[in-house]
This record gives sequence, C-alpha cells and structure tokens, in this order.
Amino acid sequence: MSTKVTVVKNVLDANDRLAAENRTLFADKKVFVVNLMSSPGAGKTSLLERTIQELQGTWKIGVIEGDIQDTYDADRIAALDIPVVQINTGGACHIDGNMVREALPGLNIDAMDLLFVENVGNLVCPAEFDIGEEMKIMILSTPEGADKPAKYPLMFQSSTALIINKIDLLPYVSFDLEKAKRDALILNPKLLIFEISCKTGDGLKDWTRWLNEQITALASK
Amino acid sequence: MSTKVTVVKNVLDANDRLAAENRTLFADKKVFVVNLMSSPGAGKTSLLERTIQELQGTWKIGVIEGDIQDTYDADRIAALDIPVVQINTGGACHIDGNMVREALPGLNIDAMDLLFVENVGNLVCPAEFDIGEEMKIMILSTPEGADKPAKYPLMFQSSTALIINKIDLLPYVSFDLEKAKRDALILNPKLLIFEISCKTGDGLKDWTRWLNEQITALASK
Repeated sequence: MSTKVTVVKNVLDANDRLAAENRTLFADKKVFVVNLMSSPGAGKTSLLERTIQELQGTWKIGVIEGDIQDTYDADRIAALDIPVVQINTGGACHIDGNMVREALPGLNIDAMDLLFVENVGNLVCPAEFDIGEEMKIMILSTPEGADKPAKYPLMFQSSTALIINKIDLLPYVSFDLEKAKRDALILNPKLLIFEISCKTGDGLKDWTRWLNEQITALASK
Repeated sequence: MSTKVTVVKNVLDANDRLAAENRTLFADKKVFVVNLMSSPGAGKTSLLERTIQELQGTWKIGVIEGDIQDTYDADRIAALDIPVVQINTGGACHIDGNMVREALPGLNIDAMDLLFVENVGNLVCPAEFDIGEEMKIMILSTPEGADKPAKYPLMFQSSTALIINKIDLLPYVSFDLEKAKRDALILNPKLLIFEISCKTGDGLKDWTRWLNEQITALASK
C-alpha cells in the first residue's frame, strides 16, 4: 500500500505545482476562473449556456470543456459564439492542472475576463484536483437525492457555491430540499446555495447577479 | 508520463489477479455476483430494494455496499433482512477486487446464491476495475440525459445489461429514449436494455424475470 500512496501523493504534489502556476497566470491576466463540477447529467452545460447568455454582454468569456471523449458540450458552447477548447481526457475521470495549462494556448486569455472549466461528470475525483481556479462551483440536481452531501462530502467541502438544479422537478422526485441544504451547510458552513432551474430559468438571476459581483470585485482590484 | 502509466498498469494487473481469485471462489460456491454501477443518484439502492423483494423468496441473497463514507445504503438493505457488508472506500471512486475480497468474511457465501455489489456512484472508474463478478449491470436514469453513452462509453461497453430507470419522469425531462438506446447498442450490440421505474414498479418484472433465469442457469450447471 505504501508505494501506491506515495505515487498518489507525488501525482497530487505535481498537480499542485502546476495549479499554482496557473493561478499566478490567471491573477496576472485578471481572468476569473470557475471550476464547475457535478454528477453526469446534473446540468453543467445547461448552466453554462444560461449563465453565458446572461453575462456575455458584460464580460469576455471563454470555456474549457472536459470530457472523456466527444465534443457535444463544446459544440453547444461554440453555438453561443464563445471561444471554447475541448479537453478529451481519454478515460481520466477529472481535469487536472496540466490539462488546463495545455488547453490555454487555444484561448486568448489576454482578452478574457471569465473562464469556465467544465469538469468531467463525477462527484468524486474532480474535487481532489486543484486546477488553479478562483473557485469551485458544484451542481446537485434534485433527481440525485438529498443524501449526496453525506455520501460525497469532499465535493461540498471544497466548493464556494452549491447550485441545486432542476427544482422544476421537485413535484415529481423524492428530494428533501431542506435536508440537502442542512447537510451541505454542516459540511461547509460558508457554502452559498442557489436553487435554480436551467429549464424554466427560475432562480438564475440570483446566481448570475452574485457571480457578476465576484468578477467585478476581481476586475477592480 | 511513462512512470504514471506503468503504475496504473501495475495497479490494474494486481487487481486483475485478485478479481480472478474472487471469480474462482464465486464459481466454486455457485454464487452469482452482480456488479451494479451508475451515476450518483440514478437508483442503484432503489433497484436493489425492488429486486431483493422480488427474488428473496427464491434465492439466498447478500449485498456489498460501496460508498466513500456513511452506511445509508447498507441500512436500507439491512432493513430487508438481507446480510450486507459496507465497504467505505475512504475517498476512492470505485470498488476493486481487493475490497471485495476483504468484505467476503463478513458474508456467509456458502449459504448464498446471489451477491450484489453496489459500486460507488460514478460513471467512469468503476467500469475499469474487474471485481470477479459474473456480470456488470449499469443504470442510466432519464434526468441524466441521452448523451451519456457517447460521453461514458466504457461503462456501456462493459455492461451486460443497461437499466434505464426513472421512466416515470419521461414527461418532465428532455430524454430521447430512442437515441439513448440506439447509441448504447452501437457501443455494445449485445447489451440488454430494460426500461423501468423503481418508483412505480413499471418494467421491473421483465428485469427480475431475466435475472432469475440467469441465476437459475448458473445454479443448474
């Protein structure tokens, strides 16, 4: 076991160094970087579409799309006339600092205020890898159930905001919204929680208004 | 990169040896082992509850529950008066052959016909690790979307059957059922597909009848 643990530690140490370099670069360029994470199908790309439509008049936005294979999500973002780079991880279950660094030459970050990195759909591994982001944002969708904070704690602990998506489905699924929020806040008392539906648009304004404030604060530094 | 690749290969090789030992043991004891995989919240435990209720009069059943932490799912299974062992992976995103081997002393497999291993909720890593199972079964739930076969191909390629769960939500979600089935079958032409709702019970009989036939075939060998 000790060999394996050492290797994992080395991988994470190497990643932390690369992530720190990314973070310095993003600070120099004043690019606000969001690492967006969730289970498969919770609505990451739908949230990006909605958020970009709301903010693209105010900020210059770019996207890095992480998927094991295919370019479906990148195609959806490109349709919004937003620069996007696809990372195909080729089996890996998360985005790491090096993947982001290698994707950057495909984006003009000198002319960018806001960069979204859509991670691979996975509630476990993405939370372990720093990519140099300003903040991690996670989505939990109501059909997944309210037991997710208890089962995947690191994701909730490492996120700045939790977006509870698909609230339009609340009448049709067994999701205890108050329990989900309570358990998430026990894990992370500073966690901001937004309840939204990317389908109906409910709650989106609160989220985009808050995100806009964060980017404004960084830009005015 | 070559060091990392070698390490990954060593880990998988070691796992394959342990999985082969598990498989020999399960064959000796005539235990039919199902490795159940899905995204978080797709309905693995709900499917187990429904399936156990249908088959526990016919077969002696046991369950190994895999979670990063907590015993919520194991408690649900134990309530059905079924022997269950909890594996807490402590952060790992999948069950491997060694974890299953270490869980077996907690179960009396001499007096068991059917053993379910509920994997960690994750559409990526569990598909890479053989645990010595007779078959992998995966669940895709309708709110996750029909693009999942294209995005997580290994899971679909390595499974014997695909259970499309939460068909009761079809009127409320954007899920192209025919596309999901078509794309899954392109990846794996032998894949059996069951459309069910663990909530309403729709389609469950077809699944449990088929599973019963598989166990009968093994038991009569």
